[in-house]
Amino acid sequence: MSLDGYLAGPEDDISWLSIAEQEGEDYGYAAFTKGIDTYIVGRKTYEVVLNLIGDFPAARQYDACYVLTTRSFPEREGITWYNGSPSELLRDIRRKSGKHIYCDGGASVVKAFLEEGLIDEYIISILPILLGKGKRLFQEGFPKHLLKLKETKTFASGLVQLHYTNKPS
Amino acid sequence: MSLDGYLAGPEDDISWLSIAEQEGEDYGYAAFTKGIDTYIVGRKTYEVVLNLIGDFPAARQYDACYVLTTRSFPEREGITWYNGSPSELLRDIRRKSGKHIYCDGGASVVKAFLEEGLIDEYIISILPILLGKGKRLFQEGFPKHLLKLKETKTFASGLVQLHYTNKPS
Repeated sequence: MSLDGYLAGPEDDISWLSIAEQEGEDYGYAAFTKGIDTYIVGRKTYEVVLNLIGDFPAARQYDACYVLTTRSFPEREGITWYNGSPSELLRDIRRKSGKHIYCDGGASVVKAFLEEGLIDEYIISILPILLGKGKRLFQEGFPKHLLKLKETKTFASGLVQLHYTNKPS
Repeated sequence: MSLDGYLAGPEDDISWLSIAEQEGEDYGYAAFTKGIDTYIVGRKTYEVVLNLIGDFPAARQYDACYVLTTRSFPEREGITWYNGSPSELLRDIRRKSGKHIYCDGGASVVKAFLEEGLIDEYIISILPILLGKGKRLFQEGFPKHLLKLKETKTFASGLVQLHYTNKPS
């Protein structure tokens, strides 16, 4: 996100993410996704990616890929359209093989998961920019969560990666 | 601020700041304020501090202390009530002795200064908590600013301090 908390500028603009593009630097993304079996994303993020690159690689990359939506979509290989509560989805996934679940956002999905207290680890990358307006990663209205800082990483591009777990209560 | 960008919870609640209170740890605040000659703060922050501790130490601590407000207040030693634009204030201050100006917020003051591009350094402390609601440090509606990461510091409490300058254009 930007320092002021946006994951996208006005009109879903994510071109500013390029300020962190550095040859050979993936910010640990490949290593992180290697440990993931299940991917969850919101319908809007799905469409933004699809419009941007004409493909949705996550559909092939993970054992299971869920797109949260209340609309109905035609079948698409590798994708399960899901219209239900996040906690039910997690129960279903855990009953199967899903152990390492990557919830990629965007804002509505993050809010839904935070509302039900379903996130146990947070990896937040802060880019050196103030956008001033756009779509906030953390929408308003979920309950308070105490966190425990696990690790911070600083990169040459000025990106700072903050890694938290939920604080055991 | 909290990880989700709030400087105060609902009803100006700042009690959660206590999660970062550690004996003997001031997060570099004393060293930072030693280099400061001029202090600028908004009327609301002024009142929150005054209500909380019954005093406003900044009025004695710095050569000059400006409280931005459109209301009229009785005279108070050490404080200049200021009702004008941030850029005019900075011009005035720089014409006098003011070289190291600490703009302490809150949100409206930060926004006003960002709107006019008047901040050249940012020290942002992120506490390990998601508040879910409250008053955002970065209000919406100022122009985009590219930043340069100068330094990050991580503390035992889980507080992360990010230090940016404006990126030279």
